[in-house]
Amino acid sequence: MDLNTTFAQVQKASRQLQAAGDERINALLKGMADAAIEQQESILEANREDLARMSPDNPKYDRLKLTPERLHDIARDMRKVASLPSPVGRVLKESTLPNRLKIRRESVPFGVIGVIYEARPNVSFDVTALCLKSQNACILKGGSDAASTNRAIAATIHDVLQRHGMDPHVAELLPPTHEATAQLLHADRYVDLIIPRGSGNLIRFVRENATIPVIETGAGICHTYFDRYGDTAKGARIIHNAKTRRVSVCNAMDCLIIHAARLADLPDLCRMLQDSHVTLYADPPAYSALQGRYPDTLLQEATPEDYGTEFLDYKMAIKTVEHMDGALEHIRHYGSRHSESIVTEDQERARRFCRETDAACVYVNAPTSFTDGAQFGLGAEIGISTQKLHARGPMGLEEITTYKWLIEGDGQTRP
Amino acid sequence: MDLNTTFAQVQKASRQLQAAGDERINALLKGMADAAIEQQESILEANREDLARMSPDNPKYDRLKLTPERLHDIARDMRKVASLPSPVGRVLKESTLPNRLKIRRESVPFGVIGVIYEARPNVSFDVTALCLKSQNACILKGGSDAASTNRAIAATIHDVLQRHGMDPHVAELLPPTHEATAQLLHADRYVDLIIPRGSGNLIRFVRENATIPVIETGAGICHTYFDRYGDTAKGARIIHNAKTRRVSVCNAMDCLIIHAARLADLPDLCRMLQDSHVTLYADPPAYSALQGRYPDTLLQEATPEDYGTEFLDYKMAIKTVEHMDGALEHIRHYGSRHSESIVTEDQERARRFCRETDAACVYVNAPTSFTDGAQFGLGAEIGISTQKLHARGPMGLEEITTYKWLIEGDGQTRP
Repeated sequence: MDLNTTFAQVQKASRQLQAAGDERINALLKGMADAAIEQQESILEANREDLARMSPDNPKYDRLKLTPERLHDIARDMRKVASLPSPVGRVLKESTLPNRLKIRRESVPFGVIGVIYEARPNVSFDVTALCLKSQNACILKGGSDAASTNRAIAATIHDVLQRHGMDPHVAELLPPTHEATAQLLHADRYVDLIIPRGSGNLIRFVRENATIPVIETGAGICHTYFDRYGDTAKGARIIHNAKTRRVSVCNAMDCLIIHAARLADLPDLCRMLQDSHVTLYADPPAYSALQGRYPDTLLQEATPEDYGTEFLDYKMAIKTVEHMDGALEHIRHYGSRHSESIVTEDQERARRFCRETDAACVYVNAPTSFTDGAQFGLGAEIGISTQKLHARGPMGLEEITTYKWLIEGDGQTRP
Repeated sequence: MDLNTTFAQVQKASRQLQAAGDERINALLKGMADAAIEQQESILEANREDLARMSPDNPKYDRLKLTPERLHDIARDMRKVASLPSPVGRVLKESTLPNRLKIRRESVPFGVIGVIYEARPNVSFDVTALCLKSQNACILKGGSDAASTNRAIAATIHDVLQRHGMDPHVAELLPPTHEATAQLLHADRYVDLIIPRGSGNLIRFVRENATIPVIETGAGICHTYFDRYGDTAKGARIIHNAKTRRVSVCNAMDCLIIHAARLADLPDLCRMLQDSHVTLYADPPAYSALQGRYPDTLLQEATPEDYGTEFLDYKMAIKTVEHMDGALEHIRHYGSRHSESIVTEDQERARRFCRETDAACVYVNAPTSFTDGAQFGLGAEIGISTQKLHARGPMGLEEITTYKWLIEGDGQTRP
């Protein structure tokens, strides 16, 4: 199937969206929120079909599952997006040249954004709301596990778009096939940006195949370095929060790096993790320090594979270093440039850690669990970028706009 | 040859650069400017070797050629870059959460930037200066035509780096081979950004092969739309300046789109082009309007290939449209999203053109020849982006930085 006709229709529809005002778009988003509640029976029915094809033991099962409560939260989030200021039309720079030429740099939508994601069907609503709010048309490519649910959600959205006199192609759902993904990744004539949301494998595939600019999101291999001059009580709280607040998210901590001079404090630093049954994969010095002071059943010797692993589970690696340089080097080698933290009372070492750690978010005496668009005051979040081009860390509405230079003259020429 | 060892050395050196202060870097840039003058004999000698391998009739010959005057200009530009404020360490956002967590978004270097370019050896100096000023290490991949000159320039730069106690790997020149380009495009572990500068073919090759984020630059297919309500005197000046100021640069105009109701004014609009011997490729209505009123030898009937062509020469296509919609559609189809202009006295139509034209720079009553970093007040320019991710239009020092979120706490945890 040649999807270029579809892509061209989306591009055409994006122009209608760009001409629409923010008020009209907000009404549309509120209409979508209402429809998510009013038409929940058809969405939940489709969701039951998808769930019937998956074993409840599959870790994806819970992410796939929609409930009236979850639809309620989705609707609330869409109303929230409608209440935010428009990210379009912000004047980013402005000047008048000596020749009276007026130059202005103004935020504008990208045009068409393609989003590729996996099992979570709520993404279909979330992404559509954020794209429409920023006046970007969107092409959604969801996973096959959620195919029925996504079709029902797309039908709901199209119904609202039609009732509001908006071309339904502003939010298009592709078939859940690899062929569709491949065509999307090469649609440079029609699509301005691709955002893959999901596993490292998906992101790697997109990076290697896309001829369209990509913002990589998601994979978070996050470290906390407990420095020679760290405070034990703060460290224990930070490690516990970073590891256990939500283990399935990308900002969860994967590895504790401990300064060798502080191994005696390791049992205290890990004590709170016992209650959450966190398994520790410790290198020999850390293992010795913990032995007999952490439950045997939850303590293992680390293998090389335990470092650089995003656990997404109640598991954590521990690495001992002789110097701060070792910690910086370990993070450089194994980190995914997402979120990294240092616990120290030494300001100079904190500054050095901030400068030399190449990551979207660098923390001093705070847990990586804070990496989140809402926490950072962005109002909403379409993903967490782990690349450096365009947007880094949590991305809100402003991050899915680009800009245009507008130059107004009166017949001036350049000498 | 495996270049990964080299790439790793550059990455390591980039950290020394990030730890250096702006003053030290400015001293380095001034040292490079001095060396470009003092060591000009070895650079010019190498340049003569390159020139000897090329026919003086080759259009690249002039771009390849260095002279004492050109080296003087290069040195002046490097001193200018040294005088600019550092683009690193700017606080882009700052807030304190109710829990007293301090969050700051601060500009930082990308790390390592790869620049791929063709015949112009001055790019080796320009790019190195801009990258070092923004505390980015750079990997230069110049064209084989300029191989000797680039080697001499790299030797000069390395000499200065060494004298200033800076790891010479902060500016690395690759061999001028396709193999080197291929390895660079896949060095995602070591290189943070690729900027191709040159022909459309080079840019397409990079887009299709890079697994590293790319900023596309350069190709400019630029239109000027003379609207139904355009002022003829302004239009004639704007068209002449956009087409003839410098025909070899990307902001030069390639196609005039004229509203059919104003065909009678076409001879006046084109009159100034005669003096520069601009050949016009006109569609039938424009051809008829010009026949007998523009030199026969410079007037031809347009073929389909004349539209969407970047002439880089004293040539210009003319397209007639019945409505403004036709102009917008023509630009959408043939433009390269670089610079587009409308000549009109109708404010409403000007606004619509600005909104609906998808280009980095959109002009009203001014020529596209103004698209330039210095003109736009950026102080210096590393290229003109024709993509929408990260930077659009002229890119200065700020555009070759990214940012980091820095979060400072005192043991706070997220509920």
